[in-house]
Amino acid sequence: MLTLYGYYRSSAAYRMRIALNLKGLEYRQVSIHLRDGAQFAEDFGRINPQHQVPTLETDSGDLLVQSPAIFEWLEETYPEPSLLPADPLGRQRVRAMAAVPGCDIHPIGNLRVLQYLQRELGQDQEAVTAWARHWIELGFAGLERMLAGHPATGTFCHGETPTMADVFLVPQLFNAARFGADMDSFPTIRRIGETCNAHDAFERAAPGNQEDAE
Amino acid sequence: MLTLYGYYRSSAAYRMRIALNLKGLEYRQVSIHLRDGAQFAEDFGRINPQHQVPTLETDSGDLLVQSPAIFEWLEETYPEPSLLPADPLGRQRVRAMAAVPGCDIHPIGNLRVLQYLQRELGQDQEAVTAWARHWIELGFAGLERMLAGHPATGTFCHGETPTMADVFLVPQLFNAARFGADMDSFPTIRRIGETCNAHDAFERAAPGNQEDAE
Repeated sequence: MLTLYGYYRSSAAYRMRIALNLKGLEYRQVSIHLRDGAQFAEDFGRINPQHQVPTLETDSGDLLVQSPAIFEWLEETYPEPSLLPADPLGRQRVRAMAAVPGCDIHPIGNLRVLQYLQRELGQDQEAVTAWARHWIELGFAGLERMLAGHPATGTFCHGETPTMADVFLVPQLFNAARFGADMDSFPTIRRIGETCNAHDAFERAAPGNQEDAE
Repeated sequence: MLTLYGYYRSSAAYRMRIALNLKGLEYRQVSIHLRDGAQFAEDFGRINPQHQVPTLETDSGDLLVQSPAIFEWLEETYPEPSLLPADPLGRQRVRAMAAVPGCDIHPIGNLRVLQYLQRELGQDQEAVTAWARHWIELGFAGLERMLAGHPATGTFCHGETPTMADVFLVPQLFNAARFGADMDSFPTIRRIGETCNAHDAFERAAPGNQEDAE
């Protein structure tokens, strides 16, 4: 069975839970308590050389890191149901939409960055929250323009079934709510988020439904 | 012919120039002056809905955004020479190494983030440079552990020919030098960087060799 080293509130681990659920794969979870710094344990460096989550351990003991790269491996190794369209331009669009949270929002607002703002730059909670909200709202503004009115946008980000774009979007929506981002300007994103969150694979992956949720 | 909308010093555009050169594809470049804010022009929103670079325009006029997603499209559309290994675990490793600069370093240290630190949080040049260096050195520490002693590491990050991992690494090395990152702890990264920079496809892509270089 696959093993996912994650944390209930980690966006990148949340993505992996959604993808594994959508593909109908069984997996066990090992919780690494990020707020307590469990990822910095020397032993954990063998599981993840960057001391981050997620890591996906295969049946053969291979240790896979970096959520976009794990996603592509899952898609190649367990192609059904596919979470990428069949046509190259559609695949490009879906991967580009996934990269908005994956590269342009989440890395700037994750725990270690917010901790640096507080500890090294002496920023208070208000400034840290404003920082997180700023990058979420800026990224979502671009994503909304990519989605709204595009002929390929459907019930989900691309067509009528979930893709990589939805897998990456939903954990960012969870963070947007945590930080109180203003979602009024993003009606398409909100509509797709509601559809996803009503879907069993997304619901079972939600932070609040994990054993290590606090 | 393909058209690349970029900027000589943008890491993400630099990646695209390397990949296009490695694949032997002809392309013309349109320079978008990021420091002058040319990406915020309303017209440019049609080219890139996030008002960022790069955008790759195809012969058919399709506008492709987000460098990791453009990379995968190039790989699928122009498979030779391949910039990903043939085996799924090798592909996973290469994509994971590309994600270190792609997701964990560059997004936190790019121009718009540094400008926010200065303008919104009142940080001085010293604090901004220390910030950029911090995320580069932290990311490279993880990447060095992924490379050093791994049996698949070769002349390049993975084997004896350039892959996506090298395409994403080299622009980050350019930034590391700009910000004065301490590279002493990363001998494998340094060795691979020197090999890449002596390679014609990488050299022609270097910021200093672009028409819009200042």
